[in-house]
Amino acid sequence: MTFGIVGLGLMGGSFGKALKKYNLAINVYGYDHNKVHQSQALELGLVDKICTLEELKKCDVIILAIPVDGIIAFMQHIKDIDINTTVIDLGSTKEIIVNNIPTSIRKNFIAAHPMTGTEKFGPKSAIDNLYEEKIVVLCNLEDNSALHIERTKNIFENMNMKIVYMDAKEHDIHACYMSHLPHAISFGLAYTVMDHEAPREIITLAAGGFRDMSRIAKSSADMWNDIFRQNRDNLIESLGIFEKNMSDAKQMLIDEDYENLSKWINKANNLHKIL
Amino acid sequence: MTFGIVGLGLMGGSFGKALKKYNLAINVYGYDHNKVHQSQALELGLVDKICTLEELKKCDVIILAIPVDGIIAFMQHIKDIDINTTVIDLGSTKEIIVNNIPTSIRKNFIAAHPMTGTEKFGPKSAIDNLYEEKIVVLCNLEDNSALHIERTKNIFENMNMKIVYMDAKEHDIHACYMSHLPHAISFGLAYTVMDHEAPREIITLAAGGFRDMSRIAKSSADMWNDIFRQNRDNLIESLGIFEKNMSDAKQMLIDEDYENLSKWINKANNLHKIL
Repeated sequence: MTFGIVGLGLMGGSFGKALKKYNLAINVYGYDHNKVHQSQALELGLVDKICTLEELKKCDVIILAIPVDGIIAFMQHIKDIDINTTVIDLGSTKEIIVNNIPTSIRKNFIAAHPMTGTEKFGPKSAIDNLYEEKIVVLCNLEDNSALHIERTKNIFENMNMKIVYMDAKEHDIHACYMSHLPHAISFGLAYTVMDHEAPREIITLAAGGFRDMSRIAKSSADMWNDIFRQNRDNLIESLGIFEKNMSDAKQMLIDEDYENLSKWINKANNLHKIL
Repeated sequence: MTFGIVGLGLMGGSFGKALKKYNLAINVYGYDHNKVHQSQALELGLVDKICTLEELKKCDVIILAIPVDGIIAFMQHIKDIDINTTVIDLGSTKEIIVNNIPTSIRKNFIAAHPMTGTEKFGPKSAIDNLYEEKIVVLCNLEDNSALHIERTKNIFENMNMKIVYMDAKEHDIHACYMSHLPHAISFGLAYTVMDHEAPREIITLAAGGFRDMSRIAKSSADMWNDIFRQNRDNLIESLGIFEKNMSDAKQMLIDEDYENLSKWINKANNLHKIL
């Protein structure tokens, strides 16, 4: 099969690497509006060649590995593809994407979210094994035809991923709590520390805890602004709940109510039993 | 030299390992009120023998590796030690500790904070290299005598640590932003997710971001309740600032003000330039 990857950054570039590693493609084409990314992707061997939009549309499988707003815009360029062409998007939100798929390609278009990533971006951030042993969520498959479902499952299974099925709306709620809210909080912690501490103190005193908590605060502002916009309602709600929980803890400190503060910490500690 | 380690958990146990690795001690004695920890520490070879309080007080160096409230209580048991006995505490807060050191041992007592740790606790959590290449902050050395300063510096330098000097009050402010606030936030995120999500969703969708952000939420409730109590004023203030920053971001989402949200994320992104 011939694959066309749209967006040659961390997700798309690593996808190209995985296709090659598992021999899943005869040809891997890359499509990216950024000239620097085009040549980096070729140099790094992430794709075999850079293609035109017309060549992309003739691929057997088109992978959309661009920010979520870009996915919605790009759908319009490929709405006349062949009935046998599979489109898979790798976006972090699913409901708005699913609601925007043009009718002409609804059966072709698989809404997928691989639960993986790093805080880095661009072709040079592409790594081996980004997808291996990771979960990929597939949404609303009842709207897809059998050929595209089968093909998509084969691709992800051959990349050693575990497939989970979910409704797009449900996905967005869970992805909010497990990924989007943690990102917003990490940005908020980094913002607070950057605003208060001098760089010298940050370098000197940043131990494992802060380093872990602020790693994802280095993630791409463009990409995350998009995700926050697309999952706005869920994020606003979860931020409200988080704010309330933090404010409760602060109040326990103000009241010197260490018994309830200990219970509050213990509830968080219970995560031990799950992860 | 003979060392006596009070508290044979992650910090004390790993200290015993480091003393042995770098051949810094003739004998390493352990002191712990928990019988299970006593036998585990012996089995794991973290210390050579379990000692009595009287034997402990005859050591050349006493290491206090217990929760911060415990350190303050324990000072009272060793306030009649010899003028040449060095005491080093490894607590995460420093101002209240320094203010509570009995006058009789003020010159002996070095207030230290090694910027290292993991979310685990107990003798079995002790690891090689916990201290290696890490920062240790020494506070208010102007109140110590030359012998104890010299000895402490030698110990930490021989353990391959980097020494930083700081006023205890300043230390507590910086440690709040770089460690205590991140812990409180991690507890708050874990609390929020545990309260909202079913365990199945947490296991399925927990990717790298959430795993990193919630790792320190598994830290000991007892130990952190103590630290929060001792650094209460700084923590309340920093929580207020963090709350304001998160609430600003939420308001930008409500207002659909993505231009300013992007600027907010970009400020957090600047951490890149430092860490």
